[in-house]
Amino acid sequence: MHLCCLDLEGVLLPEIWINVADRFKVKELRLTTRDIPDYDELMKYRLRILKKEGIRLKDIQKVIAGMKPLPGAAAFIKHLRQIHPVIILSDTFYEFATPLMKKIGNPTLFCHWLKVNKAGFITGYQLRARDSKRKAVLAFKKLGFGVIASGDSYNDISMLKTADRGILFRPPASIAKQFPQFPVCSQYAALIKHLRKS
Amino acid sequence: MHLCCLDLEGVLLPEIWINVADRFKVKELRLTTRDIPDYDELMKYRLRILKKEGIRLKDIQKVIAGMKPLPGAAAFIKHLRQIHPVIILSDTFYEFATPLMKKIGNPTLFCHWLKVNKAGFITGYQLRARDSKRKAVLAFKKLGFGVIASGDSYNDISMLKTADRGILFRPPASIAKQFPQFPVCSQYAALIKHLRKS
Repeated sequence: MHLCCLDLEGVLLPEIWINVADRFKVKELRLTTRDIPDYDELMKYRLRILKKEGIRLKDIQKVIAGMKPLPGAAAFIKHLRQIHPVIILSDTFYEFATPLMKKIGNPTLFCHWLKVNKAGFITGYQLRARDSKRKAVLAFKKLGFGVIASGDSYNDISMLKTADRGILFRPPASIAKQFPQFPVCSQYAALIKHLRKS
Repeated sequence: MHLCCLDLEGVLLPEIWINVADRFKVKELRLTTRDIPDYDELMKYRLRILKKEGIRLKDIQKVIAGMKPLPGAAAFIKHLRQIHPVIILSDTFYEFATPLMKKIGNPTLFCHWLKVNKAGFITGYQLRARDSKRKAVLAFKKLGFGVIASGDSYNDISMLKTADRGILFRPPASIAKQFPQFPVCSQYAALIKHLRKS
């Protein structure tokens, strides 16, 4: 029995920032770690855009509250949790993800925190740890677990490399090509078969 | 937002070994870490008794399948998971706990594994890690979390001491007296108030 570590956006939920970008019609917010691999650079860019556009945390939370998990995600994670311990390792923020997590049965989520000023604008973010996905997998291995991980993006690669086995789920073609050592799944039925293999 | 670490038996589920002891009418199996603080000593004692009595893993699993969570436990953990990441740190075994975990919504469980021979008898156990509860809390703190922990027994004390805050839930009087630094709760409503305090 091993521990399963999953990315959140792209694996269980739609990309939050892309939904926010579309709702507010701000195409600069559509960029993700798929486009800018350096997370800090990406976040600073996003916060500048939000400030410029006058978008506050509660405006974003309204958009997120209306989002739905990816089709089949709730049943997939429910099934997986019956047979393996599961931890979601994500670079999103608790302030964003919490209302959506309820829709997939509140699996355990390790992510980050936002800094918000009195006017309700996001002023920064507090990383729980740097390179947090890789560090979490390392910690679980030191605690005696075999670890199998799945994600879709650049910020998942160190997690996939550190795990005993890594699986790409619906990655962009460029990432699948750049990291041919990881099997690629596009459906939950295939992913759960990979995750169950010991 | 901090991480909540909870013991399993005595906090969410009844003591599994006590139920097994009562079902098979073997009073020597009623001893727990409340009685013998050294876990390895306790387990070796239990396995000798099982062998002597001819009790196999599947016999025990039948008893466990008929058990229920503590009254109110399922609602408590569902509520807690909506507001905090939760990890259950237990010295039980996946082979025992898995059917019962379903009844409390499959929260993430870190525990140990059994060794079973071809005839179905438990021959030993594989600790995921030694002093695993304390090590898990240390790992979560290194990953950037504040940690609040709750348990009821001797094997929870190092976890409670290592966490930023520790709470005893329904401990025997002797443990409450020996560790007066930890607040004591006997109801889930009080426990959730303590766990939510930052």
